[in-house]
Amino acid sequence: MNGFVLWFTGIPSSGKSTLAAAVAERLARRGLALEILDGDEVRPHLSAGLGFSRHDRDVNVRRVGYVCNLLARNGVIAIAALVSPYRATRDQVRAACQAPFVEVLTACPVAVAAARDPKGLYARQAQGELSGLTGVDDPYEEPLQPDLVCATDQLGVEECAASVLQLLERRRLIAPPPGAGGQG
Amino acid sequence: MNGFVLWFTGIPSSGKSTLAAAVAERLARRGLALEILDGDEVRPHLSAGLGFSRHDRDVNVRRVGYVCNLLARNGVIAIAALVSPYRATRDQVRAACQAPFVEVLTACPVAVAAARDPKGLYARQAQGELSGLTGVDDPYEEPLQPDLVCATDQLGVEECAASVLQLLERRRLIAPPPGAGGQG
Repeated sequence: MNGFVLWFTGIPSSGKSTLAAAVAERLARRGLALEILDGDEVRPHLSAGLGFSRHDRDVNVRRVGYVCNLLARNGVIAIAALVSPYRATRDQVRAACQAPFVEVLTACPVAVAAARDPKGLYARQAQGELSGLTGVDDPYEEPLQPDLVCATDQLGVEECAASVLQLLERRRLIAPPPGAGGQG
Repeated sequence: MNGFVLWFTGIPSSGKSTLAAAVAERLARRGLALEILDGDEVRPHLSAGLGFSRHDRDVNVRRVGYVCNLLARNGVIAIAALVSPYRATRDQVRAACQAPFVEVLTACPVAVAAARDPKGLYARQAQGELSGLTGVDDPYEEPLQPDLVCATDQLGVEECAASVLQLLERRRLIAPPPGAGGQG
């Protein structure tokens, strides 16, 4: 059993958590051990007291990366769903990881994310109740060489999840599904 | 593969890290997946910025417990070596754990720990350079019902490690060593 880190990065409401959950469900159906480290859920456990300054965001991202590494090097699939806005910090996490690391960008235009806005963040920012919203008035640095880009404004969650699974199979991080044919 | 948490608690220099390492070596020799979360080593990763107030210690202990649980519920043996001075906080961590939780007290008189003092903490406290040293001028609340007590002033590390392994075997958390006989 070989663990790895599957890291979803993207602006708020770009579909990280949704896609992470869809991928996790498919992996769990195959009997694989996995953990989802979702930014919003993990923060109270690992980073209570930290805010959203660059420093605090980076500390949080590194912490989640540290935990992902502990899991992955022990054979667990660690799925992170985290805005993780800074390229250098994500690259540090990847470099420190002792297991394969797969970075997936959930890409969608800010306007699309703002129209979804399930947490009301974009609305609050627009009304001046919140500042430092990634992609609006705080930076988001896209990966220059992500392992995969999922255009969540163009593809549904099923299609995106399928493309992630295909990548993992192609990289031999997971076995092909039972019953999959193949001459090679 | 069934994970569990093995939690060493005790005053500074009571032998937590030493015993954790000895137990880990024996478990690793049996091919078991494990992680050691040693207080001193983990702090910079999980709790940079936290100090040694009761609040900060508790947050740190809960964080380590959270990570131990993630590992253990995925089949990894999570070994914590942490002063973790407050009984209620340790009990919270145990209650939140979704895998078996084994609490081991490394017991030794403060005078013995102070004579060991590999990190020089007791000396610094005595010289007034440090305050809030657990067991001296900060509380240590012994577990009321630890799963095991290792009297590290009376037994060597090999004997203590053997008693931990025996407990884990008796609880069926690990299999007996290869070649072990047994009628029952």
